[in-house]
Amino acid sequence: MIVYGKNVAKEILKNNKKVEKILLQDSFDDKEILAMIENKKMIVNRMSKKDFSKFDKYSHQGIILYIEDFKYADIDELSDDESSVIVILDHLEDPHNLGAIIRTCEAAGIGGIVIPKDRSVDINSTVMKTSAGALENVKVSKVVNLVQTIKKLKDKGYWIVGTDMENSVDYREIDYSGKIALIIGSEGFGMTKSVKDECDFIARIPMHGKINSLNASVAAGIMIYEVIRSKK
Amino acid sequence: MIVYGKNVAKEILKNNKKVEKILLQDSFDDKEILAMIENKKMIVNRMSKKDFSKFDKYSHQGIILYIEDFKYADIDELSDDESSVIVILDHLEDPHNLGAIIRTCEAAGIGGIVIPKDRSVDINSTVMKTSAGALENVKVSKVVNLVQTIKKLKDKGYWIVGTDMENSVDYREIDYSGKIALIIGSEGFGMTKSVKDECDFIARIPMHGKINSLNASVAAGIMIYEVIRSKK
Repeated sequence: MIVYGKNVAKEILKNNKKVEKILLQDSFDDKEILAMIENKKMIVNRMSKKDFSKFDKYSHQGIILYIEDFKYADIDELSDDESSVIVILDHLEDPHNLGAIIRTCEAAGIGGIVIPKDRSVDINSTVMKTSAGALENVKVSKVVNLVQTIKKLKDKGYWIVGTDMENSVDYREIDYSGKIALIIGSEGFGMTKSVKDECDFIARIPMHGKINSLNASVAAGIMIYEVIRSKK
Repeated sequence: MIVYGKNVAKEILKNNKKVEKILLQDSFDDKEILAMIENKKMIVNRMSKKDFSKFDKYSHQGIILYIEDFKYADIDELSDDESSVIVILDHLEDPHNLGAIIRTCEAAGIGGIVIPKDRSVDINSTVMKTSAGALENVKVSKVVNLVQTIKKLKDKGYWIVGTDMENSVDYREIDYSGKIALIIGSEGFGMTKSVKDECDFIARIPMHGKINSLNASVAAGIMIYEVIRSKK
């Protein structure tokens, strides 16, 4: 898997992730990153601006890393204690949204993220880049069937909180104590019906405009910080 | 100015914005939009997929509109009553972030957005697209000097709330009653020093991870919904 850009590179190099190859543009001179590479005695391939230009579809900032593919966690590896919060993404499509949500989860200390195997954005290099290195510190689990996973979380004592406008209550009026699994719907279609049916609560972020739609990663951010508000 | 995509087209057509020209790909068949165009007796240019392909750098969904340039509001046109909230973007760079913040401001009923004239993302077609039509319902003012604008808002009785990690207080502990001008710093550098010096409060969103950075539009969303929490 290819990743690129200084922020991602720093996190990768900091985290002892297995790097297969590093490509640097001739002019690359970020001292911090160069010192990290030097320290690890890694082989680096310096390339001219011209040769490097084939990577210009990525915003690479002069550095490309080939790393092993992202390792998904098993659902049982996600954190599971009395105040755990897990975020379930119900068929999100946009890698920028996934990246931004991973950053939020990392900052908020979320126990793990669940995404479905099919019809969903995957951890790719855009997600790596957008998540600004946060992916290294967040567990992501990819599951075949969201509904089955939600049932399993219920058995473990999780309260399932969905997000939607219909049949919902103000997000500030829900009791988020205990274990919480928070579900964020897809950009275009919100939550899948079968997933919605599993929810113990449906939270609504009040909106006062005419358009009434928040970007999915913004809505996730508002919800996640509301849930952890009651935890700390 | 070129705008594209079905969501934006619908909002533009709904809002009686002056449309100079509409281009449709031959296969375009969105009945709702076609009815809107028919209703307004607008001239439409149908084009083959091949001819339309020159617009493929935009995610156009088969529809391109040429509209008059975005009209910025004067700073005095932004809403100004006892519970007004204004959002000031201190040299934001990413059009996707600006678009997402415009959506949040629209949904939250924010009185206006202020951006600086120089070294800042502008209202372009990417912003139009990302804001999903919300731009039609939010006033945006572009000013030469942010510090002068902030001083002017202070004279009008606004409390200036910045966002930063240093010398800050937990964002949940600030009293947001009265008129509030909320400042969001740029993606890479946060608030400008001269802007920070004008703040009455600096709010901090607590972070528990190792990376500790939220996407700018996510941070803005969390802050904006915290401020309006005390208003409604």
